[in-house]
Amino acid sequence: MTHQALSPTPRSTIRRGKNRAVTDRSALYAVLDAGIVCHLAFVADGAPVVIPTGFGRAGDTLYVHGSTGAASLRAAAAGAEVCVNVTLLDGVVYSRAVFHHSVNYRSATVHGAARQLTDRDEKLAALAVITNHLAPGSWDYAREPSKQELAKTAVLALDLTEAAVKIRNGSPGEEPEDLVPERNGRTWAGVLPLRHAWGEPVPCPELPSGVDVPAHVTARPAPFG
Amino acid sequence: MTHQALSPTPRSTIRRGKNRAVTDRSALYAVLDAGIVCHLAFVADGAPVVIPTGFGRAGDTLYVHGSTGAASLRAAAAGAEVCVNVTLLDGVVYSRAVFHHSVNYRSATVHGAARQLTDRDEKLAALAVITNHLAPGSWDYAREPSKQELAKTAVLALDLTEAAVKIRNGSPGEEPEDLVPERNGRTWAGVLPLRHAWGEPVPCPELPSGVDVPAHVTARPAPFG
Repeated sequence: MTHQALSPTPRSTIRRGKNRAVTDRSALYAVLDAGIVCHLAFVADGAPVVIPTGFGRAGDTLYVHGSTGAASLRAAAAGAEVCVNVTLLDGVVYSRAVFHHSVNYRSATVHGAARQLTDRDEKLAALAVITNHLAPGSWDYAREPSKQELAKTAVLALDLTEAAVKIRNGSPGEEPEDLVPERNGRTWAGVLPLRHAWGEPVPCPELPSGVDVPAHVTARPAPFG
Repeated sequence: MTHQALSPTPRSTIRRGKNRAVTDRSALYAVLDAGIVCHLAFVADGAPVVIPTGFGRAGDTLYVHGSTGAASLRAAAAGAEVCVNVTLLDGVVYSRAVFHHSVNYRSATVHGAARQLTDRDEKLAALAVITNHLAPGSWDYAREPSKQELAKTAVLALDLTEAAVKIRNGSPGEEPEDLVPERNGRTWAGVLPLRHAWGEPVPCPELPSGVDVPAHVTARPAPFG
């Protein structure tokens, strides 16, 4: 962990908890790739809006998608500034002091102006990235989008130029005086880890009998890893 | 599931996926209470910003907290509009079509102007709510905030007046033609549920031997339930 942000523009420079800022791009990629949905923020009629939405990453581009009918996507697509955050929660930190209670987490934030994809091939390639991020292997397995479905789907591209990563892990932070055994020796402190796993696949009720769950579903790596 | 939002102002009226909108306030409370962190969006220098942060709920008030030194909290605290979203991810929906791939989720969004708490007692009460949301039982167990710690902590209050809940669960949506067995009878579709659990508590390395993990940690209910 270092004290510098990935791209030290004023708003992506991490001021609070600088010891939790991480600079290398591989850490940024790792956090983004481990997320399943992102939170997309934009300004609509002067007020902030944040929505959860699907996304994917290819190189230094983040793609988000949504309905072309959604006011949210229209606002973000018009070239306005957006902000995207992906946060993975790894545990709850129980400190000896209320003030130092915290969470262990990995969090990536991206700022920039979104660009709406209009070229059909570029849009299909981005949707492949988004689909395989949500459901690895599904792009080649499931039916490809029809012309109408493609028209209903808006895809935004966002450069990862202005991005920051924050990671907290490990044991609680404490004030030195809270560690004095005579004063606080009986107070438990530590981390309660949060575990995530895929459950058993639940087949669609319409599925004919005898259709096996494909390997890209059964062998999917554990979530948020 | 109904077709009306909790508070049908224009921006909290759910336009997309209306069949996923839920109206009753108990559903709103349930989603908020099941979350661990929220995503707080605000406008800073004309651009949207979204950050993950701790929160809690008491009645129809949502509390978020942060450092008084954080530019984010200062911007939000100045009475400007904010937007808060809490999303719980329940599974990945594998459809026969790429277009209908989705997630099962519970999501709550709140819009409004935040009010910064300045009264000491009100602030302490709100911090108790936030602390016990993150770590139920910790407010009475851990050391209370010192005067300095309290001064470093900003707490914002947000009314749940303008709020909306969206929930998706169950099997994939499909186009009728994708359900024709002759055409698509060998394509698996269904839901891969996402399971969450607490791991074994990891004691702080500074902890003297013989300090048991307290019941409020060991008996904590499963996350996101």
